[in-house]
Amino acid sequence: MFRINENYLKLPGSYLFSNIAKKVNAFTAAHPDKPVIRLGIGDVTQPLAPAIIDALHEAVDEMAHEETFHGYAPDLGYEFLRNAIVEGDYKARGCEITADEVFISDGAKCDSGNIQEIFSLDNKIAVCDPVYPVYVDTNVMAGRTGTYDPKSEIWSDVIYMPCTSENGFAPELPRETPDIIYLCFPNNPTGAAISKDRLQEWVDYANRVGAVIIYDAAYEAYISEEDVPHSIYECDGARGCAIELRSFSKNAGFTGTRLGFTVIPKELKCGDVSLHGLWARRHGTKYNGAPYIIQKAGAAVYTPQGRRQVQEQVAYYMKNAKAIYQGLKEAGYSVSGGVNAPYIWLKTPDGMSSWEFFDYLLEHANVVGTPGSGFGPSGEGYFRLTAFGSYENTLAAIKRIQSM
Amino acid sequence: MFRINENYLKLPGSYLFSNIAKKVNAFTAAHPDKPVIRLGIGDVTQPLAPAIIDALHEAVDEMAHEETFHGYAPDLGYEFLRNAIVEGDYKARGCEITADEVFISDGAKCDSGNIQEIFSLDNKIAVCDPVYPVYVDTNVMAGRTGTYDPKSEIWSDVIYMPCTSENGFAPELPRETPDIIYLCFPNNPTGAAISKDRLQEWVDYANRVGAVIIYDAAYEAYISEEDVPHSIYECDGARGCAIELRSFSKNAGFTGTRLGFTVIPKELKCGDVSLHGLWARRHGTKYNGAPYIIQKAGAAVYTPQGRRQVQEQVAYYMKNAKAIYQGLKEAGYSVSGGVNAPYIWLKTPDGMSSWEFFDYLLEHANVVGTPGSGFGPSGEGYFRLTAFGSYENTLAAIKRIQSM
Repeated sequence: MFRINENYLKLPGSYLFSNIAKKVNAFTAAHPDKPVIRLGIGDVTQPLAPAIIDALHEAVDEMAHEETFHGYAPDLGYEFLRNAIVEGDYKARGCEITADEVFISDGAKCDSGNIQEIFSLDNKIAVCDPVYPVYVDTNVMAGRTGTYDPKSEIWSDVIYMPCTSENGFAPELPRETPDIIYLCFPNNPTGAAISKDRLQEWVDYANRVGAVIIYDAAYEAYISEEDVPHSIYECDGARGCAIELRSFSKNAGFTGTRLGFTVIPKELKCGDVSLHGLWARRHGTKYNGAPYIIQKAGAAVYTPQGRRQVQEQVAYYMKNAKAIYQGLKEAGYSVSGGVNAPYIWLKTPDGMSSWEFFDYLLEHANVVGTPGSGFGPSGEGYFRLTAFGSYENTLAAIKRIQSM
Repeated sequence: MFRINENYLKLPGSYLFSNIAKKVNAFTAAHPDKPVIRLGIGDVTQPLAPAIIDALHEAVDEMAHEETFHGYAPDLGYEFLRNAIVEGDYKARGCEITADEVFISDGAKCDSGNIQEIFSLDNKIAVCDPVYPVYVDTNVMAGRTGTYDPKSEIWSDVIYMPCTSENGFAPELPRETPDIIYLCFPNNPTGAAISKDRLQEWVDYANRVGAVIIYDAAYEAYISEEDVPHSIYECDGARGCAIELRSFSKNAGFTGTRLGFTVIPKELKCGDVSLHGLWARRHGTKYNGAPYIIQKAGAAVYTPQGRRQVQEQVAYYMKNAKAIYQGLKEAGYSVSGGVNAPYIWLKTPDGMSSWEFFDYLLEHANVVGTPGSGFGPSGEGYFRLTAFGSYENTLAAIKRIQSM
């Protein structure tokens, strides 16, 4: 008789965003007259930029003719895209990354969930708390996290690095030595950024203790401050300890178009085994590439027009972020984030729990946000709003919250 | 110090098709004057059908406007596609499958590689031999296959079901009871099909011993004979024991467009845990959906025009299959497959090994095929040719082989 992966059963409840969707669906079914404004999930709302649309149409036309048709993509992704990435994201910032260290994928969620597979099950992970749930949940599913205590909402074999208002939402080096460190800056969910000096400390630490850093830079396009690094490879020694994950979802509106990439420098090794080789093997065996037309769309992001257009889009969302930040401040909330990230992180008022505030906000302002506790125990008492709505909706939501 | 997943190191050599690519690249570099005809990888060559191209352009235009833009897709995939699949692939054949049992993905390779994750590591898998390498390799990477004997090319904890000319390339029920049975019909690589009666025996067997069948039906569009089932759900009791994998790659030319789906009936359970729930959890946690525009393209395959056009394409490839089959027969080869599948399976002449014949064919006919031994020990002494070339190239390849 076949048996299931029992680790799946250890996962408490279902995925955060599925829960939110259920609650919102129930509310709208009960109150069809109350239009809900969604600032919950980090999903973009602005259409794809014209340069991307043009590239998509062109690529579709190529697929219509035998001479220009494209079948299976090369294992790592098309060179035209990997070269554009190296030029635009790395060389331009003085980072020494080559095209054959870039693995094109269908998004950072998949990569951040799958990357743990190339590591042994007895590695100990460290995560910021609060944190993007995928890092922890995928390690739970693999059986790497020990037992769960429903009361504290803590896994016995996970090292939590609290990020709260007390430490400015910046994790401190953990007391217990981890093997794998997940870092995400600019941060989801808190919107906090890290300075280059602070990130260098993490790189030095990882090299010192022999840990690998999985660096999720999905939000780098939102960085507005000078001393905030766009890539971990801006730090000395990062090639020996860090994997970087990138996404086209938030900088170019690809949440429904699906494209991302992972960088693994060739000198990142465990003994004489290169992680690059392991990930290449996984990519070749369990994945079959992002669609050709989508990779062409991705390359359009790096053209002069494409770049200008997506920068305008980022600016649009950051105008929202500013409006939310200031609007909440004016309403008396304690707020952070929103400067180098499209996320605003607020302290729930009057000692409400995160889910209490979720229900309260949905009920009284008909606004959907994300409960901070969904991101980890230290997220309790916090709440995330995203800047990805339309400007009109964002202003309307703030107005509703202010008059709540 | 972090440690790697040592199971990866157990994998012998690199992925079959990467090896072939390396050999072919070396040959073409050394002989730029000799144009190579590729009938190796099962990659399509005909352009996407007009109905699919139209759907892609329309969907791209939708992505260009805020009102019709699509962000994150629903977890299981868009309902318009899942409904079309249920109507076109299941109801039409009398199979009782509902839209919420269909999980849209970016292809059957990923699904067939990932599906093992929801099972315990102590499950024993059974595979046909020869077999599509992904089934075995992904179980190796998970640590489910025991130790490898390089001499016999056999994993200690895998049940091999030989498919050779002696049994008409049809596996017999295994003597040792497996937990998970991988079946692929029409078969890759042998091109063999299974009758409905024989598949019913497998379903009855799985229900009897408590095994789950992972049924890869990626080639069902190539079935030409009446008594060959298109879906395992045509068999009684399959809803209680079978997962079905489907692909748009071969029936609609999506190898570079990426779309597939997995069906898990809700009553397929281990104790009171439904596999549907586990896969839904994996889908929601580690995957983020196929692109909206690609899902629209997939739905176009089920329209009357789309269906007609892709059927013409399948007929085009099957004309190639017939030409290869007959051409090789005339040249004195022992050949099978090619009737319900786009693959022709031939016995290597003069006791050559599969790789010897690969080199011989590349050298003397400048034709690329796939060595049977790459698919498992019982594939030794066999060779696969695919019908996915252009008709002109296919005829030219056969002519070259005949005059070799």
